[in-house]
Parts: sequence; structure tokens; C-alpha cells
Amino acid sequence: MPRYRIAIEYDGTPFVGWQRQALGVSVQGAIETAIHAFCGETVSLRAAGRTDAGVHALGQVAHFDLSLPRDTFRIREALNYHLKPQPVAVLDCVEVAEDFDARFSAVKRHYLYRILNRRARPALQQHRVWWVAVPLDWQRMHAAAQHLVGHHDFTTFRDAQCQARSPVKTLDRLDVVQAGEEIHIRASARSFLHHQVRSMVGTLKHVGDGRWQVEDVKRALDAHDRAACGVVAPASGLYLVAVDYA
Amino acid sequence: MPRYRIAIEYDGTPFVGWQRQALGVSVQGAIETAIHAFCGETVSLRAAGRTDAGVHALGQVAHFDLSLPRDTFRIREALNYHLKPQPVAVLDCVEVAEDFDARFSAVKRHYLYRILNRRARPALQQHRVWWVAVPLDWQRMHAAAQHLVGHHDFTTFRDAQCQARSPVKTLDRLDVVQAGEEIHIRASARSFLHHQVRSMVGTLKHVGDGRWQVEDVKRALDAHDRAACGVVAPASGLYLVAVDYA
Repeated sequence: MPRYRIAIEYDGTPFVGWQRQALGVSVQGAIETAIHAFCGETVSLRAAGRTDAGVHALGQVAHFDLSLPRDTFRIREALNYHLKPQPVAVLDCVEVAEDFDARFSAVKRHYLYRILNRRARPALQQHRVWWVAVPLDWQRMHAAAQHLVGHHDFTTFRDAQCQARSPVKTLDRLDVVQAGEEIHIRASARSFLHHQVRSMVGTLKHVGDGRWQVEDVKRALDAHDRAACGVVAPASGLYLVAVDYA
Repeated sequence: MPRYRIAIEYDGTPFVGWQRQALGVSVQGAIETAIHAFCGETVSLRAAGRTDAGVHALGQVAHFDLSLPRDTFRIREALNYHLKPQPVAVLDCVEVAEDFDARFSAVKRHYLYRILNRRARPALQQHRVWWVAVPLDWQRMHAAAQHLVGHHDFTTFRDAQCQARSPVKTLDRLDVVQAGEEIHIRASARSFLHHQVRSMVGTLKHVGDGRWQVEDVKRALDAHDRAACGVVAPASGLYLVAVDYA
């Protein structure tokens, strides 16, 4: 059976998340329905990252199998046609080897978190950012973030519902930069724990607004205790940007 | 009576346009209602640019008078509170001289037009761009745009409904640049005719996709004939970015 890999962009706002659920529309469900509308096949999509409700994607990756080979250009065109008017677009479709797995073959995942840091609430960026009205010092946030980069036990930044076997992960990058009125936080790792990026961002926000010292982030990490975490940043600011494969 | 100038950001998608109309919600109406909710005064807002339905603003400017002086910080905070959950935000509020007029005192207006130029339709940028699936040559578009810069009779690029006394305007800037998957067109002038930016963009698109030659844009301008114009680009890609005052 031929296997296909698709890259997907979506606005997470109207969805219950990536994963199909009993109630509500999921991104997975929307695409599986479009595949069925296109060729009549019932497939099970597997994604690199099962994003939560409200989380966006610029480059989510998923794979599925079809019983018959199809032209990849036609697959992309047909899925985009059948996905209308939902805010989901298939950017790319390629045929891959039968042992390719969007989740397990991934060697790196890249996330972006956007904070709109200004007094006035968002108008054009509603549901696209975390609005923080108090001024944040992004340079202090970046300094604090460097304590989290590397191979650590991330229990502090892990949701209670997280199903990963181990809380030990290697965080390759956690950069905080200013971008006009926004602060952008870029995180890269082979894999992340559930809510890890949002937990790290919420904690860095405490450093940015002066409530925490830079060193407090290291203390929180070393505590290996969920209670030591700051707030969990809202879903609306998070984007799965890209997934790398070997 | 004290006069106030506000800078405004809005997502034009749900509005009938800037101007108050008999049916539907306008940006002007939404802000006037918020002013009334804040202080009980019924004002008439005047804007620098009366944007059409679906057109966005990053920095629209408007003015209004109050019978009593109010703190500008409080005005901004109160309007943003009362405007919720509509996608309109007051970025700034300052007291200005009694002879200031948001429309007539403006010396330059800056617009941005965003084209998403890729095969897959927009997901995150739905209602924020003009989606053009065929590849566009932005460098040819920029070359053609330079024929429009300067002091000209813009009858070709003027809507039949335009109420300006003269079709002669000075276009200071019309730059076409690539920005990732998007093509951005930046237009600046003291004032524009109705639909002028969207008419110029629609015409440049014909150059970008190869239907027109670069020189055809000069011929269209010189024709002084609305029928010589290309298509009118959709409202969704247009942003009023900023307005300059002396």
C-alpha cells in the first residue's frame, strides 16, 4: 500500500485539537473526511505532533496509506478542495517509504510562541497571540531560557496528563527575540512533553514582568515539581512550525 | 471642546466598512457606541481613510470631540474595554488642537497589500490576503509599478463611485517585494481615489502572471479609461498601515 506524507497549515481556533474526539471537530477528523470525500477510502492519519485545542500549525506533518497509488499533486488539490471552508490547508504531499512514520521518524520539532506585548488588546491578531499588557523584558527572558536548554528532567514543565514514559528530554533551542510589538519564543527539540512549551513560556513570562529572577527558572527546573512551574501560557500563541526527518 | 485623535487597528472582515451605514456593523459605529458607553456622549468620528468592507487597518486615524476633558490613557482603556469582543483596538489616544482634522490634516497615507502566492489556499491567513495560486513574477510587477509612481490622471484606476473632484493624484511610492510565500505591495500618497490601490494591484497581477507586458501598465494609465484597468483586487488583502500629519 502506498504511503503519503502531507504538510499541513491550520488555524487551531475552531478545532478541539489535532486528535479525533467524540465531540467537536478535530483537524485529524476534517482531513480524514476530506480524504474519504476524495477517494472513498477510510484512513487513519498519524501526525508528528498532536496539538491541543486552539494551537496552530504552519507545518504539521502527517502520514496515511491508500490502497491504490494516486498522483500527489491531485491528492493535495483534492484535499484542499474538500477541506473548504475550514481553515486547514495541505501545503505539500509526497509519497514516502512504507516504514516512514510521521510521529516516530521525526528527528526534530520546531515550535514558535507569539506574545503580543502592548497595552491595547489584539484586533487583527485575535486568537493568534498571547496578549500580555504589562511590559516584558525579552532579554531577561532569553537569559532565563538558556537555563532550560540541554538534557534535563522537565517534570516541572510537564502536564499532569502527559503520557510520555520519561520526563527527561533534550531541549536544543529556546530563543527569545523581539519582533516589533511581539516577543517570539522559538523552541526546538526531538520531542516535547505535553504542555512543555506553554509551561516554559508561562514561566519565562514571570521573568519578563519582573516577578521572578532569572535564576528562579533554574530553581524551578531543578525542583522536578509541577507546582514549581509558572502559569501555562494560552494555546492561542503556539504554532507547530516544522518537523524534521532524517 | 477638547478634541482627541485615536489610532486604531481592526480586522475588517466582519464589518460593512469604516463608515456607518443603515444596515450592518461599521467600525465607525462600533467605536462611537464604545465612546457613548464610556462617557455618555454621542460623537461623530471622522477618519483619515473610509476603508471598504473587508479592508483592514493597522493604523487608521480618527478624531472626535468631547464636551469635557478626559484623561487620554483612560479613554484608550475604556474604549478597548467597551469594544470587546469586536476585532477593533484603540492603539493610542492624544489630545489635539481644535483645528486638527483626521481627514483633511493628513499629509500622507500608507497602504499595504498582501498577496499569498502559493498553490495551497490560505488557512491561517484566511480573510487576511489575496490568494493567487499561479506563480507571480514580483520583479516584473515592481518594474510595471514604477510607471504609476508620480503625478498622473488616475482615471483608469478609479472606481465609478469615486467622489473625488479630480482624478489627478501624486503617487509617491508603489513598491513590490517578496516576503516568503507572500508578495507585498506598499503604496504611499497624500490621498488616493476610491479603489485606487486595489485597482493598481489587480492590474499589476496581470503583469505578474504574464498576461500583460510591463509596458501595458503605462498604456492603461495613459488611456484614462476605467475599462483599461485590470481586475480590482479583493478587499481582504488591503491594510491601511499609517497616516502622517504635518
